[in-house]
Amino acid sequence: MEKTVLELAKLINGRIVGDDSIIVTEARSFDQAVPQSITFAVGDYVDHIGQCKAGVIILEEEVPDAPMTQIIVDNAKAAFAPILQLFYPPVVVPREIHPTAIIGKNVTIGNNVAIGAYCVINDNAVIGDNVTIRPYVYIGHNTRIGKDSDIYAGAIVHENCILGERVVLRAKAVIGGEGFGFATENGVHTHIPQVGNVILEDDVEIGSCTTIDNATMGSTIVRKGTKIDNLVHLGHNVDIGENCFLIAQVGIAGSTKCGNNVIFAGQTGCTGHITIGNNVQFAGKTGITGNVPDNAIMAGYPMRHHKEWLKLSAYENRLPDMVKTVKQLQKEIDALKAQLKES
Amino acid sequence: MEKTVLELAKLINGRIVGDDSIIVTEARSFDQAVPQSITFAVGDYVDHIGQCKAGVIILEEEVPDAPMTQIIVDNAKAAFAPILQLFYPPVVVPREIHPTAIIGKNVTIGNNVAIGAYCVINDNAVIGDNVTIRPYVYIGHNTRIGKDSDIYAGAIVHENCILGERVVLRAKAVIGGEGFGFATENGVHTHIPQVGNVILEDDVEIGSCTTIDNATMGSTIVRKGTKIDNLVHLGHNVDIGENCFLIAQVGIAGSTKCGNNVIFAGQTGCTGHITIGNNVQFAGKTGITGNVPDNAIMAGYPMRHHKEWLKLSAYENRLPDMVKTVKQLQKEIDALKAQLKES
Amino acid sequence: MEKTVLELAKLINGRIVGDDSIIVTEARSFDQAVPQSITFAVGDYVDHIGQCKAGVIILEEEVPDAPMTQIIVDNAKAAFAPILQLFYPPVVVPREIHPTAIIGKNVTIGNNVAIGAYCVINDNAVIGDNVTIRPYVYIGHNTRIGKDSDIYAGAIVHENCILGERVVLRAKAVIGGEGFGFATENGVHTHIPQVGNVILEDDVEIGSCTTIDNATMGSTIVRKGTKIDNLVHLGHNVDIGENCFLIAQVGIAGSTKCGNNVIFAGQTGCTGHITIGNNVQFAGKTGITGNVPDNAIMAGYPMRHHKEWLKLSAYENRLPDMVKTVKQLQKEIDALKAQLKES
Repeated sequence: MEKTVLELAKLINGRIVGDDSIIVTEARSFDQAVPQSITFAVGDYVDHIGQCKAGVIILEEEVPDAPMTQIIVDNAKAAFAPILQLFYPPVVVPREIHPTAIIGKNVTIGNNVAIGAYCVINDNAVIGDNVTIRPYVYIGHNTRIGKDSDIYAGAIVHENCILGERVVLRAKAVIGGEGFGFATENGVHTHIPQVGNVILEDDVEIGSCTTIDNATMGSTIVRKGTKIDNLVHLGHNVDIGENCFLIAQVGIAGSTKCGNNVIFAGQTGCTGHITIGNNVQFAGKTGITGNVPDNAIMAGYPMRHHKEWLKLSAYENRLPDMVKTVKQLQKEIDALKAQLKES
Repeated sequence: MEKTVLELAKLINGRIVGDDSIIVTEARSFDQAVPQSITFAVGDYVDHIGQCKAGVIILEEEVPDAPMTQIIVDNAKAAFAPILQLFYPPVVVPREIHPTAIIGKNVTIGNNVAIGAYCVINDNAVIGDNVTIRPYVYIGHNTRIGKDSDIYAGAIVHENCILGERVVLRAKAVIGGEGFGFATENGVHTHIPQVGNVILEDDVEIGSCTTIDNATMGSTIVRKGTKIDNLVHLGHNVDIGENCFLIAQVGIAGSTKCGNNVIFAGQTGCTGHITIGNNVQFAGKTGITGNVPDNAIMAGYPMRHHKEWLKLSAYENRLPDMVKTVKQLQKEIDALKAQLKES
Repeated sequence: MEKTVLELAKLINGRIVGDDSIIVTEARSFDQAVPQSITFAVGDYVDHIGQCKAGVIILEEEVPDAPMTQIIVDNAKAAFAPILQLFYPPVVVPREIHPTAIIGKNVTIGNNVAIGAYCVINDNAVIGDNVTIRPYVYIGHNTRIGKDSDIYAGAIVHENCILGERVVLRAKAVIGGEGFGFATENGVHTHIPQVGNVILEDDVEIGSCTTIDNATMGSTIVRKGTKIDNLVHLGHNVDIGENCFLIAQVGIAGSTKCGNNVIFAGQTGCTGHITIGNNVQFAGKTGITGNVPDNAIMAGYPMRHHKEWLKLSAYENRLPDMVKTVKQLQKEIDALKAQLKES
């Protein structure tokens, strides 16, 4: 594929600085770019622009002596997305119901839907317009998938769940499995039926092998725009706010409620029945043990404010020296005592 | 659905306190209950019974001035289970072998079995009476599934495994995959065939995307009544006792043996080849580094007794102050020394 | 099956010490062996050889008074592998394309390939000679599987990926799913298309429910001979060297590069965009927060040298005593001061 700088700049609403006659044949990363490539740079990368071999670069501010043509935009990383889609169009999924898909009774299927091989869509499910359902997807009874959603191979959505518009489920995601709820009598655990559902609002994305359990009663909720990575677990009745990030292998126990724009870095774990405010950030592997107010940055286990955690980690390094110092002080005091006794 | 208090109390063997003429149409959580609801309360919830809007509440002790009809039972949470099943009956799975299921040679199938679409049941498998196997389930050669078990969509049980009665496997559970065993020569790792199996005893439940590896030789065992949550990993030759809880994302390395009634909270990790006693509890994210005696409550990494871990965490907060104090003591000692020299 | 010691010793190139007329009927573990068994011993097990009931044992050095026949080899554990395969031959997979497998356009299939029930092999895929693909495996467009590879049930390999020879994917592994890459504007996250692929080199093994994301551009790479356990996550553009071990539930964030012969013990987490040297070892649950040089042994979070981590953990135990000591020193100093004042 050949594209002119003018075509590319128009696509991303950018301003050209430099030679606008260059022909671009591919998009590449900053490090691997060649003269036929377009790439982008933000942050520290901009300082190393002299080493970049790209013929065209997307930037957020003009760089005076850059060795290539620049396209200036407001958000360079975001602008690179349509460029990537242009040069690397995704696999085209045929808009058809594969003859091996098993469709239950009273299923509603919108316009321009794709349902792949060996799917099972159960009774009363509702599939919105333009939804893409790839092979081996299981949709439970009464579940509704909003328009423009994309469900990857082998994902499972159990019964009664509600997915909004433009929801993405990656391969093998499991939505609405029964929550881990038991009553224990004399040491024997009896399962409590979990009869609620899962609601994933508009623009939610769920990673591969991530499991989101249904609610005991009511709904486990992930609110609009929140993105969840692979191998994450959400327990029953969890409520995650809007535009959050949950990075890989995070686990949130039952009934915890979380505000908007919260970032859980990888392998963070959270106890149940607590409340987390808005705009909170958790460092990787944080063990969340209690409520967290708005705007806090937390780390460690037991959880502390991130700055406090860094400070205490540094102080821990001084422990051996301090033990020595204290012993030395004891000796000096003993010497002083002896001296005083003599005098 | 409409049910009288009398019908509900009879179902759970309870004693009615208050108006026994009320009609109930649904079960709801304590917080979301309305006058047509039945709910339950234990622990702190009982103190807030005045704010509950339910028409009927299940309790373990009579509350004198409660604003609704009470049903008194021994275990309120357990009694709520049949109530939930009454009002929210699970999806009915047809008792048939779906025509797309592929059944191997010499497979034994009991009475009243359901086998869903696109299942693969391999040679010599034995499926007990009343077993429910949902779509995309793979049952390996020679594997036996005990009666009344329920296998959710996409679960895999590899060859030669033995599942007891009333075993539940959630969606995408993987039982009996080959253990992670290698012999290393000159830095190159050669797989050691793992020829053992997995035994899941009666009433075991396994969560979604949980993986339980087969034994190198002999069996990896989960004993009766133990409940395992989502995304848990058990290595080869692990032996978990009866009535344990393994919460989400726990990992147990090979050949570790664990007693009965042990609770592993979420994201706990355990090294291999150790022994854990009965009635042990591990806090979330514990790193189990050695044998643990009966009845211990452990936390942290390195693992400590829970009380000790809490105490040390609190002492860590005092580190910066202590460093200051020690410096101050040094100054005072130096001053004393100087004073003594002078005198 | 009956085998003579002579046959067994020949199979593993071993030297017989003792009675070479014994007939062996099964391979068992050291603890569970009976007189008809062959077993092996390394390390501490050799010291307890007197308690072993096996008729034949594989050892690396002759033990003078051992109560059974010995076969001496260089690596006893490695030598046990062909013995296990002899006595417990794996399930035979028919070398055929199952009639329910859906094969796309322009797919190349080598000789002696097995493709199981309900597989979906997409357009332009290339399947090498002797590859075994079990049921429900999804192979994306343009993906290449090297010869002698073995793909277990329900594994997914997305489009454009390249698998080397003798690669093993366990059940439900997900290779090449789209990486977790977003551009954030005004708090709203927009997915950046991830157009790269995953390369798994020769002799790589990937565990069940492990997820390896594709690269934003270029390739996420696992180099030859590396073995990855269950429920592991590798982010986009990760590059893992040769002959590494990644134990269960490890997570590596995007663009991190790791050398050869590195061992990540279970539940270790690693931040993105860092570099790890060769021959590094990480203890379980390490939180890798920065670059790591060759040959380091690391532990803890924040990560420290393993010895340092052990030392500091021990010092932490002394914290309460030290606080007491410091208080006592303060008292003694105060007493000295008072004494000096008096004198």
